[in-house]
Amino acid sequence: MAKLYFRYSAMNAGKSTALLQVAYNYEEHGRRVCIYTAAVDHRFGSGYVTSRLGPKRAAATFDEATDFFTELSQTDDIACVLIDEAQFLGVHQVKHLHRVAHILGIPVICYGIRSDFQGEPFPGAAHLLTLADSIEELKNVCHCGKKATMNVRVDERGRRMTEGEQIAIEGDVRYVQMCGRCFYQDWEVRA
Amino acid sequence: MAKLYFRYSAMNAGKSTALLQVAYNYEEHGRRVCIYTAAVDHRFGSGYVTSRLGPKRAAATFDEATDFFTELSQTDDIACVLIDEAQFLGVHQVKHLHRVAHILGIPVICYGIRSDFQGEPFPGAAHLLTLADSIEELKNVCHCGKKATMNVRVDERGRRMTEGEQIAIEGDVRYVQMCGRCFYQDWEVRA
Amino acid sequence: MAKLYFRYSAMNAGKSTALLQVAYNYEEHGRRVCIYTAAVDHRFGSGYVTSRLGPKRAAATFDEATDFFTELSQTDDIACVLIDEAQFLGVHQVKHLHRVAHILGIPVICYGIRSDFQGEPFPGAAHLLTLADSIEELKNVCHCGKKATMNVRVDERGRRMTEGEQIAIEGDVRYVQMCGRCFYQDWEVRA
Amino acid sequence: MAKLYFRYSAMNAGKSTALLQVAYNYEEHGRRVCIYTAAVDHRFGSGYVTSRLGPKRAAATFDEATDFFTELSQTDDIACVLIDEAQFLGVHQVKHLHRVAHILGIPVICYGIRSDFQGEPFPGAAHLLTLADSIEELKNVCHCGKKATMNVRVDERGRRMTEGEQIAIEGDVRYVQMCGRCFYQDWEVRA
Repeated sequence: MAKLYFRYSAMNAGKSTALLQVAYNYEEHGRRVCIYTAAVDHRFGSGYVTSRLGPKRAAATFDEATDFFTELSQTDDIACVLIDEAQFLGVHQVKHLHRVAHILGIPVICYGIRSDFQGEPFPGAAHLLTLADSIEELKNVCHCGKKATMNVRVDERGRRMTEGEQIAIEGDVRYVQMCGRCFYQDWEVRA
Repeated sequence: MAKLYFRYSAMNAGKSTALLQVAYNYEEHGRRVCIYTAAVDHRFGSGYVTSRLGPKRAAATFDEATDFFTELSQTDDIACVLIDEAQFLGVHQVKHLHRVAHILGIPVICYGIRSDFQGEPFPGAAHLLTLADSIEELKNVCHCGKKATMNVRVDERGRRMTEGEQIAIEGDVRYVQMCGRCFYQDWEVRA
Repeated sequence: MAKLYFRYSAMNAGKSTALLQVAYNYEEHGRRVCIYTAAVDHRFGSGYVTSRLGPKRAAATFDEATDFFTELSQTDDIACVLIDEAQFLGVHQVKHLHRVAHILGIPVICYGIRSDFQGEPFPGAAHLLTLADSIEELKNVCHCGKKATMNVRVDERGRRMTEGEQIAIEGDVRYVQMCGRCFYQDWEVRA
Repeated sequence: MAKLYFRYSAMNAGKSTALLQVAYNYEEHGRRVCIYTAAVDHRFGSGYVTSRLGPKRAAATFDEATDFFTELSQTDDIACVLIDEAQFLGVHQVKHLHRVAHILGIPVICYGIRSDFQGEPFPGAAHLLTLADSIEELKNVCHCGKKATMNVRVDERGRRMTEGEQIAIEGDVRYVQMCGRCFYQDWEVRA
């Protein structure tokens, strides 16, 4: 039985690397995969899945208009669908991907983060966590050495930002992973 | 470091049994636990955590007015907080429980289901999935033998119900767990 | 596809409770399970799976002569095989149970501990860990509050025992779970 | 508390890639890791951890004489020990690495396979599975599409080998991952 998988982590854990490895593993068997990434995320150029270890490859992009169920029901011979930056999926798209696994019978593996810089859920991620047949964590460490679970937005001068839009990729912001304790300690001080 | 745990399953997997076992394990060491269940759920009498295997015990009840952070910051010597029917937690309560773990330093273990009879998230469950330091699945089987992940509402004559309120505990409804494939097969036919 | 599962923990985590819950869940669907426990373990009377929460039920016993593959290939209509105290399985029996899952197509769920009071593997447990399709941990706490992974043998006066046979169930010994750090701290002092 | 981790998989899942990613993640924080691989494994040149995606880096090698506890107790400032091809560890070395985590307080993450081409445990892997504080699976697929758990040795003409030494890296053998069912189906036919 095909399944919907959600492999989540905090920022900078190696989700794209893991995705590229799964694609490699399928293709080594001569099987075909279908890779998507979010159009909105163009940190490394639009339409690429990029591992910080070096490897990158082209991918289809999705935006809110992408109709995964229709696209994938018209494609033959897909062994697996792989989606990077899956926190940017819309709620309806997650429902469609759940049907891709359970009605079309194609495994779907989504990689993404769970919460934004304020600790709020990305709606797509919350829906993936709700419907996934298998939820798996890719671990990363906080600067304090504990497991990171939260994401913090930092401006160009390294200062934590506590207000703003949920999605900010442009400009000089970057994201740092933290454990729950550090997330609140800093928050108390600076927010 | 204390953590927030979410141990989820489909209906009828044995969540209450698992909670009672964890309470027993702590108390065997002479440590004190604090047990809550949802006031809204009175299938087995209000204020009880009841295992279908037989054991049951009294528990504090929570409703939307319960202020976990304040209650627990005024209590000494709690080794662990255990919450049954955690899908009924409010979003703010989940945020507070995350702070109970990471600011007060008390482990919090929540047991609940993820989605309702229409496959929609319970808001409290979606927030637990987003913030939990550890997400663990208690497995149960669909009538077809596969792992159950979805919940179906059935009326007193055994017919699947596809419309209604998210929460319905009164009367003659009951809930049956299903795998994703069976969930949609039936849905297509009857919905 | 049927699988071989190994659900392990340190002592006193609630393995028998979990087994009884799974049996209940299958039987609630009108499906038949086959339950075994080790003949060598008669702490609660031979031939019973006993939850410390109260529930118990009769089970077939296995010893080194039990031929699981032959027994189970002659039985119809078994939805699941459940084995308690699985650390006492022989290596060949674990190989047979792997074949029960993958050749006969019957799911096998084994519950047991991993290591003895000296931190040495039980051969049956080591083979289960090697062959299981799914390895899952039932968690329990050390007296210090951390996750317990090790097992300590204690005599009737509460003193840690560091020498003796791998299996000792008779008499006044009992077993206490510990985390790795406490296991070595005490060991250094007393061994 | 530092832990001993064992991240296992069947062959060709991407263990080395995962190890390199963890190293990268630590170093990105300015923290130092210590990487070992087995001297016996020189498929990609001795003393390298090599991802099939491309990235590789030099690593210390271990053989049966390596005394991890002494080496690591003399080294300052190691945030994490990473060991590739950990199935080749000796039993005593695994015990030492457990002490590195719990006495020296340094996290140790081991990557390896569990069983050889005949389904027999590697002694080092069996001991890691017994002592690890955290056991995590890196998944890979069998040619049939199911999860691979077993490893098969194949000669230069693609024929399955069912007899030979546990360790064979020289010459023209290679290894292919399989699920339990395919492992036995082929075995019955050819062995």
